[in-house]
Amino acid sequence: MSETLFTGISQLVTPRPGPQRGAAMRELNMTEDAALLVKDGVTHWVGPAAQAPTAAETVDLGGRAVVPGLVDPHTHAVWAGDRLADWEAKLSGATYEEILARGGGIRSTMRATAAAGVEELVALARPRLAALRASGATTTEVKSGYGLDFDAELRMLRAVRELQAEFELRPTLLIHVPPTEGRTAYVQGVCADLIPQVAREGLAEAVDVFTEKEAFSVEETRQIFAAARTHGLRVKLHADQFHAIGGTELACEVGALSVDHLEASTEAQIRALAASDTVATILPGVTLHLGLPAAPGRKLIDAGAIVAVGTDLNPGSSPVFSTQLALALAIRLCKLTPAEALTACTVNAAHALGLPDRGSLSAGQRADFLVLHSPDWRDLPYTLGASPVQDVFLAGVKL
Amino acid sequence: MSETLFTGISQLVTPRPGPQRGAAMRELNMTEDAALLVKDGVTHWVGPAAQAPTAAETVDLGGRAVVPGLVDPHTHAVWAGDRLADWEAKLSGATYEEILARGGGIRSTMRATAAAGVEELVALARPRLAALRASGATTTEVKSGYGLDFDAELRMLRAVRELQAEFELRPTLLIHVPPTEGRTAYVQGVCADLIPQVAREGLAEAVDVFTEKEAFSVEETRQIFAAARTHGLRVKLHADQFHAIGGTELACEVGALSVDHLEASTEAQIRALAASDTVATILPGVTLHLGLPAAPGRKLIDAGAIVAVGTDLNPGSSPVFSTQLALALAIRLCKLTPAEALTACTVNAAHALGLPDRGSLSAGQRADFLVLHSPDWRDLPYTLGASPVQDVFLAGVKL
Ligand SMILES: [Zn+2]
Ligand SMILES: [Zn+2]
Repeated sequence: MSETLFTGISQLVTPRPGPQRGAAMRELNMTEDAALLVKDGVTHWVGPAAQAPTAAETVDLGGRAVVPGLVDPHTHAVWAGDRLADWEAKLSGATYEEILARGGGIRSTMRATAAAGVEELVALARPRLAALRASGATTTEVKSGYGLDFDAELRMLRAVRELQAEFELRPTLLIHVPPTEGRTAYVQGVCADLIPQVAREGLAEAVDVFTEKEAFSVEETRQIFAAARTHGLRVKLHADQFHAIGGTELACEVGALSVDHLEASTEAQIRALAASDTVATILPGVTLHLGLPAAPGRKLIDAGAIVAVGTDLNPGSSPVFSTQLALALAIRLCKLTPAEALTACTVNAAHALGLPDRGSLSAGQRADFLVLHSPDWRDLPYTLGASPVQDVFLAGVKL
Repeated sequence: MSETLFTGISQLVTPRPGPQRGAAMRELNMTEDAALLVKDGVTHWVGPAAQAPTAAETVDLGGRAVVPGLVDPHTHAVWAGDRLADWEAKLSGATYEEILARGGGIRSTMRATAAAGVEELVALARPRLAALRASGATTTEVKSGYGLDFDAELRMLRAVRELQAEFELRPTLLIHVPPTEGRTAYVQGVCADLIPQVAREGLAEAVDVFTEKEAFSVEETRQIFAAARTHGLRVKLHADQFHAIGGTELACEVGALSVDHLEASTEAQIRALAASDTVATILPGVTLHLGLPAAPGRKLIDAGAIVAVGTDLNPGSSPVFSTQLALALAIRLCKLTPAEALTACTVNAAHALGLPDRGSLSAGQRADFLVLHSPDWRDLPYTLGASPVQDVFLAGVKL
């Protein structure tokens, strides 16, 4: 049994365990001059240093603030190719149609990703995941979704499985882009072949669908959700990014883990989320990168929803390689308070992944935590452009 | 004489030397498979590797993109205390008056800074300047302006002088906050005592004034500018941040180095800047942090102005510890193209500091340059939240 007492903690700041909704998102526990006892990777005791139990080993953190490790509940960190030419063309005034005509857009990412082998995908994703972790993400979700065909989707998920040896990752099968022809057969194949195989091989924990006018309909999403459920996979979705076509309502009805994006959500969708246990995951990196409207983070919390924040790391709409920056942007762009943003990026993001064992520095939870450079935890949400994270501890072990 | 040939450069990308205005801001020189010959800290030759001259020493950069070092023309990197409580209160709905009533606001930074000795100010500023340099800033301007009295202003500038042993810094005397009483005598003192002493001791290269309804009037600014000129100091100003009261017009009339902020500039100020050699410096970090309107970067360029970008690093309105992030934000928030943003952060920012010797990787210029992680220079403006900068070279020497 390993046992370590961490001392020299100016402030230990954490939400309570479990999902927090509405005003409870602002209620952090703060212990000043704190100590943290970790046994076998699990938080055993947290309290004032003066009352700390003894332990086999003691580590002095030097008067720094400590917060739970962040959970990034929404990334597309596995891709090949790049979208730099698309981006430059768009900024110079090219229309989306012109970009597509020159071979750009999401299908260029799909072609490049489908052409890559598993090892190449692993090598490309590794530095991205390392950047997210250095920024504070101790658990990171990674989606498939750039496969042109089912084999390419499986290769993406196999790349995630390889990377699980190095990172704490949660894989999701994303049904992302409908084929240009034969979409009925495609959805049938997803339900009859792809989902069963992914479940059989344990390649994903959840199925995500992009439910949008230009992507999958609510009815198609319902079919895919049914297949996921049959095969023991949780469900979630990309919805209300451009149009609120009913995906959010479906997700709340079936008890989805989360609905992500929500930039186009109106009062009806906000009310549905607030009345459910489905997490409302907002992705402020997209707002910054594309200059599109922000998701109504403030309204979602005020209505009583369980709000989480993710990077949405992807090459087309969110080149945000820092979960800490996503947290910081949620404050500036979606009007969360610093306390709410910490809750959104820890226990609520963990709930969005169905992980009740992490996100809070409380007895019984995984001892994933961050030691900041600063003695004041608020430097975590405040800092823009540099990393306020000095050290990342995963299950009590410094990386 | 030292002489090094850098090879293994996938792309060497640079604006031409000297300030660039309007459409010329988009005209970068790009050499693929390039080499760079540095002699005694100065760029001696740039061209295709196949045509490179021989040199005493050769360094292979491994197929990375190279761009000029960035110049950050506007920072307040020396301060004591913090504004975390102010920020948290404001985000929870406190008014500015309530924040002032609890002892917050800029005057709390002034009290803390005035109470600090030179060595403490040096120690506090060092990691901030290191963060800016790691992000790509090879030359950084630093302002005074948090001194409650002249002695505190001088201590701030002496701290910058000490830090010049470690960083390439350009110091500015900032006349920032009028006293609550006796402002006529204060301005007279600035002109008759502070500016002459700063000039005598060589503590600053320029004088900056915050010209704004709540700060100094145009007439006061004119008096301060006259004193600066008498003592051989260049001038610049903070203007049009909240109200366009005439500071920009005055700056263009007297040939100021730059006018910084410009969020409230209208067509008249944009035209004045476009018709002048005064740099229009925009500060998108403030836009992101405070959620205020962005400066009209796009309109300034389209009108023909010389546009630069800075972090405005300061504890109250721009906790942006990365010049690369300022560059990236100028694209997202002020609608610059990637090429324009590189020009804004290199030759144009150098011009804003009166430095014709840097900002371009061309024969005769200082060999300050960045080696990126990527073979494509566009990863510099594209990346959000992680550093695309692998190595920083100052006068040909890797830091
Ligand atoms: Zn996504
Ligand atoms: Zn400023």
